Amino acid sequence: MGCGVNLGPGREFDLIRRIVGEGVRAPEVQIGPGDDAAVLSDGWVVSTDMSVEDVHFRRAWLSDEEIGYRAAAGALSDLAAMAATPVCVLVSCAAPPAVDVEAVNAGIREVAASVGASVVGGDLSRSPGPLVIDVVVLGRTDWPVQRNGAEPGDHVWVTGRLGAAAAAVRTWMAGEEPTAAARAAFARPTPRVAEARCLVEYEVVDAMIDLSDGLAGDAGHLGAASGVAITLEVDRLPLSDALGAFDRAESLDLALRGGEDFELCFVTDPDAVDVEDFRSRFGVEVTRVGTVSEGAGVWLVDAEGKREPIGRGGFDHWGAGDS
Amino acid sequence: MGCGVNLGPGREFDLIRRIVGEGVRAPEVQIGPGDDAAVLSDGWVVSTDMSVEDVHFRRAWLSDEEIGYRAAAGALSDLAAMAATPVCVLVSCAAPPAVDVEAVNAGIREVAASVGASVVGGDLSRSPGPLVIDVVVLGRTDWPVQRNGAEPGDHVWVTGRLGAAAAAVRTWMAGEEPTAAARAAFARPTPRVAEARCLVEYEVVDAMIDLSDGLAGDAGHLGAASGVAITLEVDRLPLSDALGAFDRAESLDLALRGGEDFELCFVTDPDAVDVEDFRSRFGVEVTRVGTVSEGAGVWLVDAEGKREPIGRGGFDHWGAGDS
Repeated sequence: MGCGVNLGPGREFDLIRRIVGEGVRAPEVQIGPGDDAAVLSDGWVVSTDMSVEDVHFRRAWLSDEEIGYRAAAGALSDLAAMAATPVCVLVSCAAPPAVDVEAVNAGIREVAASVGASVVGGDLSRSPGPLVIDVVVLGRTDWPVQRNGAEPGDHVWVTGRLGAAAAAVRTWMAGEEPTAAARAAFARPTPRVAEARCLVEYEVVDAMIDLSDGLAGDAGHLGAASGVAITLEVDRLPLSDALGAFDRAESLDLALRGGEDFELCFVTDPDAVDVEDFRSRFGVEVTRVGTVSEGAGVWLVDAEGKREPIGRGGFDHWGAGDS
Repeated sequence: MGCGVNLGPGREFDLIRRIVGEGVRAPEVQIGPGDDAAVLSDGWVVSTDMSVEDVHFRRAWLSDEEIGYRAAAGALSDLAAMAATPVCVLVSCAAPPAVDVEAVNAGIREVAASVGASVVGGDLSRSPGPLVIDVVVLGRTDWPVQRNGAEPGDHVWVTGRLGAAAAAVRTWMAGEEPTAAARAAFARPTPRVAEARCLVEYEVVDAMIDLSDGLAGDAGHLGAASGVAITLEVDRLPLSDALGAFDRAESLDLALRGGEDFELCFVTDPDAVDVEDFRSRFGVEVTRVGTVSEGAGVWLVDAEGKREPIGRGGFDHWGAGDS
C-alpha cells in the first residue's frame, strides 16, 4: 500500500527501501515513498528524476538540447504514471564547461511546455566531472493512480510500442548509429500525460506505472505493490518497428528489460479499454499484454502455454557508461 | 515583484536570468523564478539545491553523513528565507562507489527531522565522477516573505554570526584543520526555520533572503529585487569567533563574501526587532547591520562615514575544487 515501499527485486531497490523506510511523516503527505511520485495535500504531486552523463546517456549520442528534453520527459513521465497534470518544473544542473546549459534548458522548457508546465526555479553549478541534471516535477490530480490497486483477474496493458530506446542504446554501444526512429525514441520520449488523464477520467484504471526500468522490472514493481502475480503473454508484446535489425530473442529482451520507453503500464477490469477509441484519440496504440493473478512475481507465457518467471536482468540500462 | 528575475550581478546569475526568463506560467504558480523558492497555490513552497563534490565540498573534509546534513540544511534554508514551514524532502543522489549512500541519507533525514520534515521520495544513481546530491524541499506558508519588499529607511538585519563556514573552507584550502567551531558551521549549518517563522508572526519583516552566497552578494540580490541600495556598517557586522585566526581585512572578506553561513538577512521598519527577546527565545543573536536607501548596489560604510561600493568578488565559494 503506497505508504510503505513496495518495489520489485533488485539491489538499487533494496537500497532505496532502506533509505526512505524511516521517519515521521507530516499530515500534508498523503502518499509517501514507494510510488512514482509523492502525493501532498490539495492534490499536489511531486517527483524528482536525475540524469547522469555516462550512466543514463552519453554526450556523444545526443545534442545538449536533447539531453535536457530527455531528462525532463523522464521526470514528467512519473507525473503521467500518477495521472497528474503537470504544473511546473525545477531544474538543478551541474555542468562541465563544454556543455551549453542554455541549450539543455531549452530542451527542458520545450517538453515542459508540451504538457503545459513551466520552469519556476532551479540551481546551477559547474561540474568537475559528468553533466548531471535533476528535474523536479510538480503536478496536480484529484485522483492519483497508485501501483497498488491490481487485483486477480485484471488485465495488464501498455501504451505505445516497446524497445526502441533500448535498441538505440544497444546500437550506439556496438559503435553504430541507430535508426532515426530508435534515436528519436531515446532522445525525445513523449510523457503520456494526456493518455493517463483520459484513462483515469474513464475510471477504468486500478493501478499504473511508467516504463522506465523496462516492462519486466516495472510490472514487478506494480505486482509487488499490489501483492499479485503478473503474467505477460509473449505474443502480445507490442514490439517497436525500430527493433527490426535485432533477432527475436534480442528484441524480446530489449522490449522487456531495455527500459526508458516511458510508456504507461496499467491494470484494469477485463477488457475495460476501447482499443480503437484510444488509438483514434491519441494516435498511440494500447495493447493488452497480460493478466493479473494471485501469487507474486512477473511471468512470461508463450503460445504453447509454457509459463516461466522472468527477471529484470539481461540488459543493464545503468551501464551506458561502462566500456 | 518576484515574477521577474531580479538577482544581483554575477555571471552565474546572468545565466540563471536567461534560463528561467521565458515561458508561460500556470495559474497555480503564484511566485515563480527569482526568489529563494517558488510559491504555488494552497500555500506550498518549493525549492531545490544541488551540492557537487569538489565544488561545494570535498569528501576529505566531511563524513558522508555530514555531506548529506549540509546539503539538506542548505536547501531547507531556502524555505526559511520564505518563512515557510518545512513539510517534506526529496533527494536525488549520484554517488561513486566509495560513498556510503545510507550515511548521506542519514544526515539528510537528521536535519530534515530537526525542522519537522520527512523524506518522501528521490532518485538514486551511480556516478562515474563526483558525488552529486540534489535536495528538493517543500514547505507551507500563508505569508511567503519575498526579496522585494525593502523600502528606503528600513533597517537591515542578520541572524547569528558570519564567516565561520568560509573560515573552515579557507583553512582546509591552506592544508590545515579548521577549529571545531568553524568546522561545525560548515558541516552542520542550522536552517533558521523557527527564527524566520517568529519574525513573520510579529509582522515586522519587509523582505528576507538566506545567506548562501555571502552577505555582500545576497544583500545585492535583495536590493536588486527591491530596487533599493543597501548600506552595511562595517563596525556592526557580527563576525564569528571562529575568525580569530584571521586578520581584520581577511575576517571582513570572509564575513561579507565567504558564503554558506545560512543565516537570515532581512529588512524591517527602523528598530522593529527586539534584540534581547530574539536572543533569549532562540539562543541566536540578531544584529542590525545596515540601512536601506534609494539607489542601487551594496555599500560599505566605515566608522569615519566613508562609503564605498562592495562587490561579490574576492572569495570564490564555487572554487572549493580548484587546485
